[in-house]
Amino acid sequence: MASQEAVVAAMVTPFKYSNRVVLRTILGRGDGGLGLLGVRVVVGGWVRSAKEVKKEPAVVVQPDVGSSPLPQRDVSCVEILQTRIPFLRSIIRVLGGGDSYPPHREKTDIVLPKLPSTVFLQVSDGSCVASLKVVVESTIASPGQIMPTGTCILAEGVLKLPAVEGKHAIELQAEKILHIGTVDQEKYPLSKKRLPIGSLRDFSHFKPRTTTVASVMRMRDALTHATHNFFQNNGFLYVQVPIITTTDAEGFSETFIVTTLLGKSAEKVEPKYVHEIEGVSLEALKAAIKEKSNLVEELKRSDSNKEALVAALRDLRKTNELAQQLESREELHPGASLNKADEINFSEDFFSRQAYLTVSGRLHLQSYACSLGNVYSFGPRFRAERHESMKHVAEMWMVELEMAFSQLEDAMTCAEDFLKFLCKSVLENCMGEINFFSKRFDKTNVDRLQSIISSSFERISYTQAVDALKQVTDNKFETKVEWGISLTEEHETYLVGEIYKRPVIIYNYPKKIKPFYMRVNDDGKTVAAFDVVVPKAGTLIRGSQNEERMSMLSTRIKELGIRSEEYEWYMDLRRHGTVKNSGFSVAFEHVVLFATGLVDVADVIPFPRSYGKANN
Amino acid sequence: MASQEAVVAAMVTPFKYSNRVVLRTILGRGDGGLGLLGVRVVVGGWVRSAKEVKKEPAVVVQPDVGSSPLPQRDVSCVEILQTRIPFLRSIIRVLGGGDSYPPHREKTDIVLPKLPSTVFLQVSDGSCVASLKVVVESTIASPGQIMPTGTCILAEGVLKLPAVEGKHAIELQAEKILHIGTVDQEKYPLSKKRLPIGSLRDFSHFKPRTTTVASVMRMRDALTHATHNFFQNNGFLYVQVPIITTTDAEGFSETFIVTTLLGKSAEKVEPKYVHEIEGVSLEALKAAIKEKSNLVEELKRSDSNKEALVAALRDLRKTNELAQQLESREELHPGASLNKADEINFSEDFFSRQAYLTVSGRLHLQSYACSLGNVYSFGPRFRAERHESMKHVAEMWMVELEMAFSQLEDAMTCAEDFLKFLCKSVLENCMGEINFFSKRFDKTNVDRLQSIISSSFERISYTQAVDALKQVTDNKFETKVEWGISLTEEHETYLVGEIYKRPVIIYNYPKKIKPFYMRVNDDGKTVAAFDVVVPKAGTLIRGSQNEERMSMLSTRIKELGIRSEEYEWYMDLRRHGTVKNSGFSVAFEHVVLFATGLVDVADVIPFPRSYGKANN
Repeated sequence: MASQEAVVAAMVTPFKYSNRVVLRTILGRGDGGLGLLGVRVVVGGWVRSAKEVKKEPAVVVQPDVGSSPLPQRDVSCVEILQTRIPFLRSIIRVLGGGDSYPPHREKTDIVLPKLPSTVFLQVSDGSCVASLKVVVESTIASPGQIMPTGTCILAEGVLKLPAVEGKHAIELQAEKILHIGTVDQEKYPLSKKRLPIGSLRDFSHFKPRTTTVASVMRMRDALTHATHNFFQNNGFLYVQVPIITTTDAEGFSETFIVTTLLGKSAEKVEPKYVHEIEGVSLEALKAAIKEKSNLVEELKRSDSNKEALVAALRDLRKTNELAQQLESREELHPGASLNKADEINFSEDFFSRQAYLTVSGRLHLQSYACSLGNVYSFGPRFRAERHESMKHVAEMWMVELEMAFSQLEDAMTCAEDFLKFLCKSVLENCMGEINFFSKRFDKTNVDRLQSIISSSFERISYTQAVDALKQVTDNKFETKVEWGISLTEEHETYLVGEIYKRPVIIYNYPKKIKPFYMRVNDDGKTVAAFDVVVPKAGTLIRGSQNEERMSMLSTRIKELGIRSEEYEWYMDLRRHGTVKNSGFSVAFEHVVLFATGLVDVADVIPFPRSYGKANN
Repeated sequence: MASQEAVVAAMVTPFKYSNRVVLRTILGRGDGGLGLLGVRVVVGGWVRSAKEVKKEPAVVVQPDVGSSPLPQRDVSCVEILQTRIPFLRSIIRVLGGGDSYPPHREKTDIVLPKLPSTVFLQVSDGSCVASLKVVVESTIASPGQIMPTGTCILAEGVLKLPAVEGKHAIELQAEKILHIGTVDQEKYPLSKKRLPIGSLRDFSHFKPRTTTVASVMRMRDALTHATHNFFQNNGFLYVQVPIITTTDAEGFSETFIVTTLLGKSAEKVEPKYVHEIEGVSLEALKAAIKEKSNLVEELKRSDSNKEALVAALRDLRKTNELAQQLESREELHPGASLNKADEINFSEDFFSRQAYLTVSGRLHLQSYACSLGNVYSFGPRFRAERHESMKHVAEMWMVELEMAFSQLEDAMTCAEDFLKFLCKSVLENCMGEINFFSKRFDKTNVDRLQSIISSSFERISYTQAVDALKQVTDNKFETKVEWGISLTEEHETYLVGEIYKRPVIIYNYPKKIKPFYMRVNDDGKTVAAFDVVVPKAGTLIRGSQNEERMSMLSTRIKELGIRSEEYEWYMDLRRHGTVKNSGFSVAFEHVVLFATGLVDVADVIPFPRSYGKANN
């Protein structure tokens, strides 16, 4: 018996760097933990929900009310009460029952001893979707302390079959409570059940305590590892490109300046909203717009009645108008006090020149590709966009890759393989999470991921895409389709969803709408750029074959009026030992959206940063 | 025969996303590529060095100099020349020989046809330390084009045994040159052989074309993958903490401000040095100090004569003094024009408040640990330190880890395991690189890595460390050892190298020298912080058990006079569901220094950023 226990114990290896067993070790087993019956474990986590079940009360009617306490369990008394004075029980229920604890006591003739109870806690430690039911008798921990949502608990006990059959195979009968981290219920923002995901955005530090965000983070983790595995399997070297840069890779993005000029004696100021209409800030309006857009999308998805949808759309439009008014005011008086910018001498700044947060690492990465061959990077990239959108925040993570000796076709093939690998990876490793998201947000999750793996991506030129869209008669696009425009989300959605019904790679874009470094095609009008567009999430990857011909590169830089001094080092790569090369960048958060079925990037980033928002 | 070739061909799978075979696939084999004899491959890379061997010349003396060209190969003529007019050969040598190509032609009676030659190129593609010898006849490519160092070449040919026995098992006989990316030799900064590593720092975009930096980058890559593998194997989730933050994790570092206030209409300015002495900038002096320090270290290592060392030390001291003078001048007139900082209203900035580049992600990570259990992060961290040092630049990568339900001991064990895993990993996967570094920089490389794996780390309290150092009589420390001081490099080096002769973990530091969030010990004087110190590289890891008690945390924040508003969200973690927790952060670049034996962080970062330096 003892040796059998040892065998079982070996099957639940505790986490090496603390004294607890991670819940996934128990609940993530094929048998749901059933094979571990009778095993003693220490588990820790945070309470998701709690229920208290009172035991039969033990009370006695005393003719003269004294101060001597009663024995807490007096079976014979209970029996008497149950059999002889049944009406008293209902009185006791009223006085001592309910879910609040300790029971509210009133002056009464009946003395109420502490009612023993059993508490059932759903405890989650973030290691898997499932939570463990921990059964705690009130004799070993005060229910009032352990029951609030968010309480941290470390408990030792034995795994047993549930008393009542439910969805879980096993539960833990707690024998010792080793730690309780209490919650101030009045102040804890996650006390309510089923908070809408949007309401969590102001509580980045707590949001992973919800099943949804914890699941997102596990998917993010799995996708990160899959990313590294894909590149390692294919012989790419990981290169960390700089965050602080003096080269703007795109030439047309809003960038953040990195400086020490403002730091020294500057007083720290409290956040304050810049502009308001009737006491409503633009900030608040934008948040409302997001909420309302979500509602609309949800209504669209859930096939609910048309009227509700129409009303929601009307409401959204109104809020949008208000926001526009406010924005136009803002444009009239932009951050007024500091257009002293002209006076600023950046040669006195930390780097002796103006430095930005990087928008893209592709140029830097190319310099490593043109010596190490195949390289990739994975890091944060920044855009100071003031426009709130569900697709962008100020700080996002990108996977970027560059390959020497490779051309447009190669990069497109690699992009397709990469996406397929990611989808396969999460389907293999995250079915718990994917099922959760399917149930809660989007039923089509598994199909969508599967279809990426099984379909071969359609490859069409930009010109073909425009032609195809021009022939569309059953849909009116907000932005008219003309050769030369940037395709918008509506165009891409239509191409992917209606025309080709699978992922599409669009290549050879007009040179005017793509960055300077992409390779000019023989037609002189287009460049060897490509976008990978998938159903639901839109464009996940943007790539290109890059201009390797020095003379063409110089011409492009002149054409665009870019300050060539900034790019001398980049041109060096073409001056000395140039080679055909291609690469792409992946909007990592968009991949997470695609894999989870969520719709707002702010929900899949641990600490999202956007206009007016950086609370921690 | 055909099927055998197919088998061999299958053994050299070309890289999937270009038409070439990566050199590691050939040279990284156990047999050095010998098993691939006769296999046709396409390889690409950059020329490291080249040699031209002239064939026997084919010339004929023509009595009347005409314009009709001679056949390039005329064996009978050669024979005649060789046998009958031997003295003419020496004249031809003088006129047409040498290494420069095309040969310098002078008006002469002797018409020189093009001299056929064989070019031997050492080609490297960055995938391994070794390069491949590519043999190119001048009939298929112009030697003058392909020979300069840095030329990019894509060649198809057959693997064969070397004509002359050398260190390589095989070489490639080129049959077709598919691409040549030429080099402008006058302007190419890497034309010389064996450039000192320090001189590469201004050419971040080219430096990976050297064997040293390419090897560093492969080690960096291997260490990155090992990092992810370690945490994945142990069930940690990867969490990307924010780069832009409004919370200063340390409270005492120089931070970079992230802003859009300076961007709008600011003119971009050229880099300019702020202060100079006799035309020498502080910038240049600091670079010189680095160089000279390197020299001193090298001299110390190489057991060269004492006099050279003394002279080098004297020189270093002088340069240091000059730099100090210049710095004190600078302190008198700090970045003068913009202490308008007081006027700046950060509520008008992008985030409606002052935002920084993160110094450490540990606080943010703790919030995820206190919901997901065991988490880690790996990303760039920033310090605006003006002091140049071989140990720090402005942008460095950190591995950070936080664990809920864990204590000081757990974090120390995890840190030790992590380091051992990394060392094991590079010894398993990077012996080519390690051997290269051993030969070029530090003979003790393998032993140093091995000793980390085999030794159990000594764990001593700060107080023990101070006591041990106080008893040292054979060494005079520059900084006197007293309880309460921050141990300096000299102290740590002595502890690790002289007293304990193995890696040391020092724990329980005085609370005054550690950040506010570390757990106060019962003595009230120390906190549960620890540093992991290793031979040669010094402190690689700093960690702590964190203060989980809300009241103690408040007290610490008050004691230190930190603006508590900024930390409200962090305190929330202790208010609601608190738990014992610990973690650490690893200076990733210092680990790379340790593994490679190099001494300056700027050499192990792709694009280093430091005071006055961000060139791309």
